[in-house]
Amino acid sequence: HGGSVVLVGAGPGDPELLTLKAVRALQSADVVLYDDLVSGAILDFARREAKKMLVGKTGYGPSCKQDDINALMVDLAREGRRVVRLKGGEPMIFGRAGEEIAHCRAAGVPVEVIPGISAPQGAASRLVTSLTHRDHARRLQFVTAHARDGKLPTDLDFNALADKAATTVVYMPRRTLPDLVRNLMAAGIDPATPAVAMFSVTRPEEKVILATVATLAEEVALGARLGGAGPCLVLYGHALAEVAVEALPQIAQAAANGG
Amino acid sequence: HGGSVVLVGAGPGDPELLTLKAVRALQSADVVLYDDLVSGAILDFARREAKKMLVGKTGYGPSCKQDDINALMVDLAREGRRVVRLKGGEPMIFGRAGEEIAHCRAAGVPVEVIPGISAPQGAASRLVTSLTHRDHARRLQFVTAHARDGKLPTDLDFNALADKAATTVVYMPRRTLPDLVRNLMAAGIDPATPAVAMFSVTRPEEKVILATVATLAEEVALGARLGGAGPCLVLYGHALAEVAVEALPQIAQAAANGG
Repeated sequence: HGGSVVLVGAGPGDPELLTLKAVRALQSADVVLYDDLVSGAILDFARREAKKMLVGKTGYGPSCKQDDINALMVDLAREGRRVVRLKGGEPMIFGRAGEEIAHCRAAGVPVEVIPGISAPQGAASRLVTSLTHRDHARRLQFVTAHARDGKLPTDLDFNALADKAATTVVYMPRRTLPDLVRNLMAAGIDPATPAVAMFSVTRPEEKVILATVATLAEEVALGARLGGAGPCLVLYGHALAEVAVEALPQIAQAAANGG
Repeated sequence: HGGSVVLVGAGPGDPELLTLKAVRALQSADVVLYDDLVSGAILDFARREAKKMLVGKTGYGPSCKQDDINALMVDLAREGRRVVRLKGGEPMIFGRAGEEIAHCRAAGVPVEVIPGISAPQGAASRLVTSLTHRDHARRLQFVTAHARDGKLPTDLDFNALADKAATTVVYMPRRTLPDLVRNLMAAGIDPATPAVAMFSVTRPEEKVILATVATLAEEVALGARLGGAGPCLVLYGHALAEVAVEALPQIAQAAANGG
């Protein structure tokens, strides 16, 4: 008895971006079910006796395993274990927490959530750039560019995504970026709108690419060839005009290095 | 020499939602400039020798003091102090970080940002509800309902805000909520769209109000009369249909208690 599930946000990568509450949950876990984007340094916060199980690919991996994760999580909790489900970024924003919560609830297993710093927040801090600068952005929006079938979702509101008074963050943009840009252009976005792509936000291998909406797809493809790896995030909007290149000495720019 | 400014996100209220990196910054600060929404328990993480100065009202307070905060921050850093500017929530999302960063840069003062858990993330965790449930939300958007003049911003994209495939979070909604709802209705939103208002997210005095877009303004006014206090956040969209009232035993509902 007494088993439970806690969904814990591991943040974008830097272990220092874990919350105190997340560390506490890891230190009292019996089992930690973690995604492959969660680093070893973060897992090291877990109680030494805890069983650590890699359960899922995030990003572009096959998602058919979600049912297995749900079942495993609930089975372990029913055996009386304190289960920590450790997920990259923020579980409640494009982290599929909804499905895991619904599964626990249906099984009568107590479930709780501890938020994590999201990738866009990690990106904003690394770029030292507000996502909602008063002069530029009235609205901040997060969108996924990757539907269940791997394509650009067909029901996106492209007028909302082309709004010049918004800052937009695109999760999982890589496969569908040319298609997304085509739709933004058709909706009337200014092609010169500043855009940034980041690979592996807040990790040692982080890469930043500065572009415009017009050049973004080409720059990201180039960046990937030049070593950009890991999860990719795209941000665009006039707020990104505030990114000061000179404030980013530690960050390689794909275009500057090899483009 | 060696002075610097670090903007630190204090999170929505619960001190356990501070990041490890935020705690470390507080522990090496010479001066902490904090907003009035930052609790004593969070300030207690600061180095004992650090000077702690209350500098600003957040929310509806007068904003004319922003220039003074900017000047103080830069002056202290120029005197060689390690300045922590401690802000509620996430500095890069409706936290006016943009102005403070620009001021530091213009003065040649090194400036860094440590993200904080935003109020919407705190709300989602407390409601145990994903903001982007796959069946309900393709897009997540944050908007402020409070322009410089205290009114509803006139250039909001109400079609984007009425999109039934989006989850919307409204910062500082209280004064302009009736006006916002009127505009959403005019843009064709379903009046039965689930909506939640939260006061003092993740704090001991937290209050949650479950409503619909149609009843929201009335319920929030009632909730405020029944003791809802502190910062208020409104969330609406079909993802909020997943909020399980029975999962919120510790949360008072204004409508249930007195409406």
